[in-house]
Amino acid sequence: MDERVREHAAILVDWSARVEAGDDVVVSVGPDAHQLAVAVAEKLGERGATLLTTYDSGELRRAYLHAHDGEFEESGHERALLEAADVYLSLGGGRNRSATADVPDERRRDHRRANRAVREARYDTRWISTVHPTRALAQAANMATEEYREFAYGAILRDWEAMAEEMARMKRLLDAGSELRLVSAGTDLRASIEGRSAVNSAASVAYDSHNLPSGEVFTAPAAADGEVTFDVPMTLRGRPVRDVRLTVEDGEVVDFEAAEGEDVIAGILDTDAGARRIGEFGIGMNRGIDRYTDNVLFDEKMGDTVHLAVGRAYDACLPDGESGNESAVHVDMILDVSEASRLEVDGEVVQRNGRFRWEEGFDG
Amino acid sequence: MDERVREHAAILVDWSARVEAGDDVVVSVGPDAHQLAVAVAEKLGERGATLLTTYDSGELRRAYLHAHDGEFEESGHERALLEAADVYLSLGGGRNRSATADVPDERRRDHRRANRAVREARYDTRWISTVHPTRALAQAANMATEEYREFAYGAILRDWEAMAEEMARMKRLLDAGSELRLVSAGTDLRASIEGRSAVNSAASVAYDSHNLPSGEVFTAPAAADGEVTFDVPMTLRGRPVRDVRLTVEDGEVVDFEAAEGEDVIAGILDTDAGARRIGEFGIGMNRGIDRYTDNVLFDEKMGDTVHLAVGRAYDACLPDGESGNESAVHVDMILDVSEASRLEVDGEVVQRNGRFRWEEGFDG
Repeated sequence: MDERVREHAAILVDWSARVEAGDDVVVSVGPDAHQLAVAVAEKLGERGATLLTTYDSGELRRAYLHAHDGEFEESGHERALLEAADVYLSLGGGRNRSATADVPDERRRDHRRANRAVREARYDTRWISTVHPTRALAQAANMATEEYREFAYGAILRDWEAMAEEMARMKRLLDAGSELRLVSAGTDLRASIEGRSAVNSAASVAYDSHNLPSGEVFTAPAAADGEVTFDVPMTLRGRPVRDVRLTVEDGEVVDFEAAEGEDVIAGILDTDAGARRIGEFGIGMNRGIDRYTDNVLFDEKMGDTVHLAVGRAYDACLPDGESGNESAVHVDMILDVSEASRLEVDGEVVQRNGRFRWEEGFDG
Repeated sequence: MDERVREHAAILVDWSARVEAGDDVVVSVGPDAHQLAVAVAEKLGERGATLLTTYDSGELRRAYLHAHDGEFEESGHERALLEAADVYLSLGGGRNRSATADVPDERRRDHRRANRAVREARYDTRWISTVHPTRALAQAANMATEEYREFAYGAILRDWEAMAEEMARMKRLLDAGSELRLVSAGTDLRASIEGRSAVNSAASVAYDSHNLPSGEVFTAPAAADGEVTFDVPMTLRGRPVRDVRLTVEDGEVVDFEAAEGEDVIAGILDTDAGARRIGEFGIGMNRGIDRYTDNVLFDEKMGDTVHLAVGRAYDACLPDGESGNESAVHVDMILDVSEASRLEVDGEVVQRNGRFRWEEGFDG
């Protein structure tokens, strides 16, 4: 076995999910994530945790959803499983990223709605999402398979403790600040962050972080006003989307346009009342991610980028007692800030042209 | 998709497990059983059942068991899942039948022991074991992959209703009888079946039958005496075993020999106190299975064969209030009865040289 697979498993089990002896662990395995699953099983055995593996196949889900009449009942047994689980590790790795492309959105939504309590039970575990670098993901990134593996492990096999320390600097700045201002090509946005807590997303449940790789600091703005242009391309709902420009007033998107995929954005914003609100403001800080690969798990953490999400806000960012923006969607969109850009906290520049204020080459 | 895969799924879901709307179904998927899993998911969607898929990989199990220190705890989350499940469908399909060959028996046993309640919860569902015809199974049978598929579907895609009717004849004979006598080359065995109920194993939970394919009628003898020689070869615990000869007194094996694998038999008989008792007497009645493929799921149902098992007896065969032979093992061994053989119930021949008394060519 490629030694990097074992290292990935070790980071996932020990750093990310903090697995201990006696933990009841669910591992969700994509059809092409077998190798990583074997390495994770080995690590869980070493730790003395228990292990139940589930099989996560888009082809299977498609067949089920297509055949169903749409009157879904809750999967009571899955809920019982997750309510009894301590840890949930999702090892993504399909064989075709578009395996469910022809399932109607409504069917998908109805199934999600019936299984809301199942999802909540999963979020109540120490859950982590990661991916095994598969051929399908390499293809989506327009990369050779081995080239993609190098890229993915470059993002995943980090010194997370050192990254957490660096990201803590940004978190402290955001926690102390009242207003963010982002200026870049086609972008001038102000966001109120008074009373908000930023999440130091260091790829570990110990940091309220649930992705591996991670490497971002994010918060949930109380309000936002201005214009923002997202120049990092992406695939949303199976369709290419490029150069989305949002006009935001009082935290809500009041106008939008896009060079490509404008109707996809329209569909997302029309999902529900919360879908037009800015749910997240995030700063990518993982310099192991040096290029766009059309996979939000990686893209939103890319160094020299900032992202906003419309839709649901994360509770971890909110003051006690305040509930976040409710929405069925949470869609991240990304802009490159490596040139002609600056990020200010209360009028002080904290990042210019991608460089943070504590970094060499920062030109305040 | 090969239409036979869909037919297999339909028999499994409708005939075997009797799945209905609202059933919470667990589907266990082997790494190479993906195609069958997709067909089963489609069928479960049609029926309006819920679906949770687990991943059953020998390589994964090996990695876990090897790494563990052996002090196992129960998988509480798996138990919760199975206690909440109505149906459990196991779709076997590994990539290497010997994937766990180097895991010490003791490690395996300790893990099984810690998860006894998990297993019981599974047996309390409407459970069915089947296999997808994989390359690994074809190889074990010394057959080309497509040749093996034809063989497997010949065994699985039967008119189970008609088979159940035919097998009911044998069940009636056994239920009414007091003593079985089996005579063949190297075999003369008498077994008391007074008060026992035979199982008409018609590949459906409606018949107390949990295998697909099935096609056997079996009972749990109260006692047995004589000699029996098993001339169908098999692999047991990863080792070839040939021409096992048992001497049975009062239901217990008192002497044994084998042309090959004698020490494997010795190990099985020494497992525990119940391992030396005859737990099952079964009659293979699936004429779709016309050859030995070194897979007990198929072999023991082969037409023109009879089998005995040492170890655990099935409760369904026993009078109310009587508990069966307790043992951690249940090992079937098979003899060919197509020539120079007869099976008698209370002195009356019911099968001679493979022909049943109701069949053409039967020579009473």
